Amino acid sequence: MKLKKTPRATVERLPIYARCLALMAKRGLRTVSSSDLADRIGIKATQLRKDLSYIGEFGTPGVGYDVEELLWQIQNLLGVTKELKVALIGAGRLGQALMGYQGFKEKGFRIIAVFDSDPGKIGTIVQGHHIEDINDLEKVASEKHIDIAVIATPTGAAQTVATQIVLAGIKYILNFAPIALILPDDVNLRQVDLAIELQILAFYRAEAERKRDQQD
Amino acid sequence: MKLKKTPRATVERLPIYARCLALMAKRGLRTVSSSDLADRIGIKATQLRKDLSYIGEFGTPGVGYDVEELLWQIQNLLGVTKELKVALIGAGRLGQALMGYQGFKEKGFRIIAVFDSDPGKIGTIVQGHHIEDINDLEKVASEKHIDIAVIATPTGAAQTVATQIVLAGIKYILNFAPIALILPDDVNLRQVDLAIELQILAFYRAEAERKRDQQD
Repeated sequence: MKLKKTPRATVERLPIYARCLALMAKRGLRTVSSSDLADRIGIKATQLRKDLSYIGEFGTPGVGYDVEELLWQIQNLLGVTKELKVALIGAGRLGQALMGYQGFKEKGFRIIAVFDSDPGKIGTIVQGHHIEDINDLEKVASEKHIDIAVIATPTGAAQTVATQIVLAGIKYILNFAPIALILPDDVNLRQVDLAIELQILAFYRAEAERKRDQQD
Repeated sequence: MKLKKTPRATVERLPIYARCLALMAKRGLRTVSSSDLADRIGIKATQLRKDLSYIGEFGTPGVGYDVEELLWQIQNLLGVTKELKVALIGAGRLGQALMGYQGFKEKGFRIIAVFDSDPGKIGTIVQGHHIEDINDLEKVASEKHIDIAVIATPTGAAQTVATQIVLAGIKYILNFAPIALILPDDVNLRQVDLAIELQILAFYRAEAERKRDQQD
């Protein structure tokens, strides 16, 4: 079977579908129509049907999609049906928050190694994790078969750490530091910008203000 | 002027445009073509032009967009040209990481009050913030004119806290707890799911594996 290239926007919606379907499955819902699922996610039903056509899922006319089956197909496509191994770089405040974040384990991601550069932290145990020396990253990565590295260092250290991650052979990086990293083309980088959602809320707040001004 | 309703997907891209333009401005770039800007963001130029038509910006043929001006227009639309006041609920690990997050202040969001329910934390100073009693939220919110509330509590406390936020008259909520909150229709809620970006990386990892399997 020739694989169709899935558009980036579709890929970015897959976790949203998975979250929504998991919630429906939890509540005991068995089937869902494309328009109902699209509504819950806030997109058009045509977009949803197009997205799901990439995974070869077209639903049953008049019945819709089987919730559990669609969820499984999406999880399979996302490659999260088996546990992925995550290395966390940075055991500071953000790193500690991420160690305690329930959502990772639930979704199939396990932090199996934590690194820091601070001699005061290396060798200590934080939330059950033995903090390792960032200079041992390459050794640990090859021993433990790390799939994904998460950068939770201060901004100033992020580029150096990113280079160390690449040298350790890890190709998938999630960066929390608010800085644009420079990386080789074959490395997959995703950037978490915690301010984006605040900006979206700010938009709706400003829009409500503009509406009020119009009515005056 | 009648305001056109901006589609949700366009709203969600505005912060990305702003971030990209801010970076270009910092590097001294004066103008940018729609195809160049679209490329940097990873969308089609037609989509970009459609998005920017909502803000009444069409660029100059053959020249493109003025970087600084377009940035200002987007920031204005986002309502972040003046500082917005944020209340943070939860002074635990995640809350402390958010207090220290540089990206908020840079983007125009100031945490002006921090709340917790733990008597051991209330009244203490954490990173320069005086931790207040969550039961005083309504009083503090009206005194300090809070624009947005951020929930960084454990999952089990998030719904109770959300209800308290609504009762305090705050209409814009950012929730970090991995739980679907039930809120009145006139409250704007955004959900941060820290696992989503990991899932997207997992997709690309799985896709690379599928490609390798095909080649074998």
